[in-house]
Amino acid sequence: MTNQAFVANLYHAPIKGTFDYIEQACIEIDGLGMITQVLSPNHSDYTQLVEQHENNSSLTRLADHQYLLPGLVDLHTHAPQWPQAGKGLDLPLHDWLNQYTFPLESSYSDLTFAARIYPELVDTLLAHGTTTAMYFATIDSAPSEYLARVCKEKGQRALVGKISMDEKSMCPDYYVESSTQQALSDAEAFIQNVNEIDAQQGLVYPVVTPRFVPTSTKALLEGLGKLVSHYQCHVQTHASESDWARDFTEQAYQKTDVELYNETGLLTRKTVLAHSIFLSESDKETIKSVGAGIAHCPLSNMYFADAAFPLREALDKDLHVGLGSDLSGGPLPSIFHAALDAVSHSRVREAGTNTHIMEQRGEANTRVSFVEAFWLATHGGGLTLDLPVGVFKPGYCFDALVVDSNTQGSQVRVYDDLDSEQDILEKIIVHTTEPAISSVWVNGRKVK
Amino acid sequence: MTNQAFVANLYHAPIKGTFDYIEQACIEIDGLGMITQVLSPNHSDYTQLVEQHENNSSLTRLADHQYLLPGLVDLHTHAPQWPQAGKGLDLPLHDWLNQYTFPLESSYSDLTFAARIYPELVDTLLAHGTTTAMYFATIDSAPSEYLARVCKEKGQRALVGKISMDEKSMCPDYYVESSTQQALSDAEAFIQNVNEIDAQQGLVYPVVTPRFVPTSTKALLEGLGKLVSHYQCHVQTHASESDWARDFTEQAYQKTDVELYNETGLLTRKTVLAHSIFLSESDKETIKSVGAGIAHCPLSNMYFADAAFPLREALDKDLHVGLGSDLSGGPLPSIFHAALDAVSHSRVREAGTNTHIMEQRGEANTRVSFVEAFWLATHGGGLTLDLPVGVFKPGYCFDALVVDSNTQGSQVRVYDDLDSEQDILEKIIVHTTEPAISSVWVNGRKVK
Ligand SMILES: [Zn+2]
Ligand SMILES: [Zn+2]
Repeated sequence: MTNQAFVANLYHAPIKGTFDYIEQACIEIDGLGMITQVLSPNHSDYTQLVEQHENNSSLTRLADHQYLLPGLVDLHTHAPQWPQAGKGLDLPLHDWLNQYTFPLESSYSDLTFAARIYPELVDTLLAHGTTTAMYFATIDSAPSEYLARVCKEKGQRALVGKISMDEKSMCPDYYVESSTQQALSDAEAFIQNVNEIDAQQGLVYPVVTPRFVPTSTKALLEGLGKLVSHYQCHVQTHASESDWARDFTEQAYQKTDVELYNETGLLTRKTVLAHSIFLSESDKETIKSVGAGIAHCPLSNMYFADAAFPLREALDKDLHVGLGSDLSGGPLPSIFHAALDAVSHSRVREAGTNTHIMEQRGEANTRVSFVEAFWLATHGGGLTLDLPVGVFKPGYCFDALVVDSNTQGSQVRVYDDLDSEQDILEKIIVHTTEPAISSVWVNGRKVK
Repeated sequence: MTNQAFVANLYHAPIKGTFDYIEQACIEIDGLGMITQVLSPNHSDYTQLVEQHENNSSLTRLADHQYLLPGLVDLHTHAPQWPQAGKGLDLPLHDWLNQYTFPLESSYSDLTFAARIYPELVDTLLAHGTTTAMYFATIDSAPSEYLARVCKEKGQRALVGKISMDEKSMCPDYYVESSTQQALSDAEAFIQNVNEIDAQQGLVYPVVTPRFVPTSTKALLEGLGKLVSHYQCHVQTHASESDWARDFTEQAYQKTDVELYNETGLLTRKTVLAHSIFLSESDKETIKSVGAGIAHCPLSNMYFADAAFPLREALDKDLHVGLGSDLSGGPLPSIFHAALDAVSHSRVREAGTNTHIMEQRGEANTRVSFVEAFWLATHGGGLTLDLPVGVFKPGYCFDALVVDSNTQGSQVRVYDDLDSEQDILEKIIVHTTEPAISSVWVNGRKVK
């Protein structure tokens, strides 16, 4: 690929809590898909840059009703759970895991089943504008590596984890590692194999993935911590998702999840903690000092987490935080929708719910704005993963999507005489469904 | 139109809390769009009925991946607010009304503006499967009557209200009735005119529509109550939506909203109270004894209502209740989405939100199931309006939609070997977006 450029009306959020809208911006990207320049029309080099690419036939001009946004980052999604997205959500977490989730996950040991589901899932997420996804796969290495290959072929930036779970008392006997030693050698082989799948491109990454504390022996956590230190790879796990999960760790270790992960070497700049509903002040300090991140998954939070993640406080404390779909604890494959849900959920938290309480029903001043949710869905996600994605800046990857309010099936209605720049951004967040996303690029490669 | 019949896999909810799935059901409808028979394949008349319509070329067979459902009922939506759906939701209710809503609503006095918005809105709702909608229009009669005509032409079952608001101290001076007397004579003329628009067909109905207590004088409420008694028409209004609204009525009248509406003749079998967040036990008894209904609008509830509507209790008390989009206090034009939000919101209510509370964070046993939400979206809506819609039964109108999991753009994924009948219904509720709705009928007329 050679250099190319786009002229587009773009939205992005370089600074948390605000957004930039640049009409007719010119973005130049190099042959590797990296952004080299982002110029406004009033920049002195703008005309020359546009003309140069026009003459080289390397210029793409978007139409007026098309909006270029950074690609969306999904920080937490369970790829194998896709076939059950939207069903069984009425069940308690424990029943949902044992009746639905564990049997389904184990069926991926049959690679023909994996081949039936994973390509369709990756296509679906790309179609919804998710240019980067951090995946929990399953306990089995072969289908998990297959998922990484599918992502690479389809061109999605992906962080893929084979799940490690070895605590036999907490796992079904058909879905558990044969031994801690085997779990660790499989995890290491998985890291090496995924690194080989994508040695050069920087598109697909292996992730060390203990499921959560209850399904892990301490020896497993310590062994995985050593792998993280040796391979410097990403980590993902669940932290303090529910009263039960919090209490489990407290009783077993007299520690919080964050303390335990930190002590075993699993809390790093490249760690993503899903949920993290119940964090102590000291946990937050630890996360901040390490530079670890949090995946807020608003919809699964509503269903399974027993309380609302204190998102307002996480933003105000400058923690690294972004959004996750949590397929299929959350049923929807859209990070735009997760952004809407994050705002809605913060409003419910602020107001409270109980009509019988007259004073202090909710938690004052904890709402989150749509503009902040846009940051979470893009820049916040990239920051959490320590990857140069989520904003249009030189040195960042060109991961992008186009929302086209005029395209067939779009539910985004823009009235030029009635809608401000911010109104349009809010409508994009609220109303973008799959058909309105007309193009998606990852690393400069068009994938939709 | 002559008789016709459909053979289809259908879902409906004749009994609250359960659903029926009939594979290859045969539904016969007459020339007026009323259902005459619904037969299962094991019924003794089934084969004859199917063959008869096959021979008459009056049979439509749906495909295997197509599911026939009752059309959706939207009990509360503000038609003029459609252009602002999704914007400004960060504002407090008072600012949102004064900065966004009242100026926008007043602009419909220009009928060319109404002609730009209303047809597109009605098309959008029909495309989302809303076969019956109860609309707040605006204070102006001409555009409100125009909305009724648009619904009739496009074939949507619609209950349309010209808004009555005459309390000058609570309304902007550019958007208020000139006098109580004028308000009442305009309301009466509106009833007569809408009745004339649709004298025979039973498709479009006028609704007496005081906006809410604060914008109404007592004389207006009393006068409207007399119109209701005379014309036996529907009523819609907002009841007890927020702490502020509840307290306002309490201070002005030493009554609840429900008591005031009841006393002024506005609470009838055909009254729909939007929101009704803060109801006393006595209010609920009154509503039940009168047979009035409630429009639960989960998304706007999250944004503006200060607490969660006690939906569980309303269902258990057998109140008439259904769902509303509340455009644009809720931004989404989909009653499927309202059903998902109703379930999600009930889960947040049950769990509570505040991580600092360790005991009794939420309200135990207040969750609502997807199957109950399906009933709310269909049968509950019809029951609330006292109209024969929302279920497939002889004597009911054929208002229906098809969800086609195989159609272009459908996000409903059905795996025949993995999904039960209930799983598929839950997936339909969660994942149906506009493209998956391949056909819509109202009164037997195909409108999508
Ligand atoms: Zn998860
Ligand atoms: Zn309303």
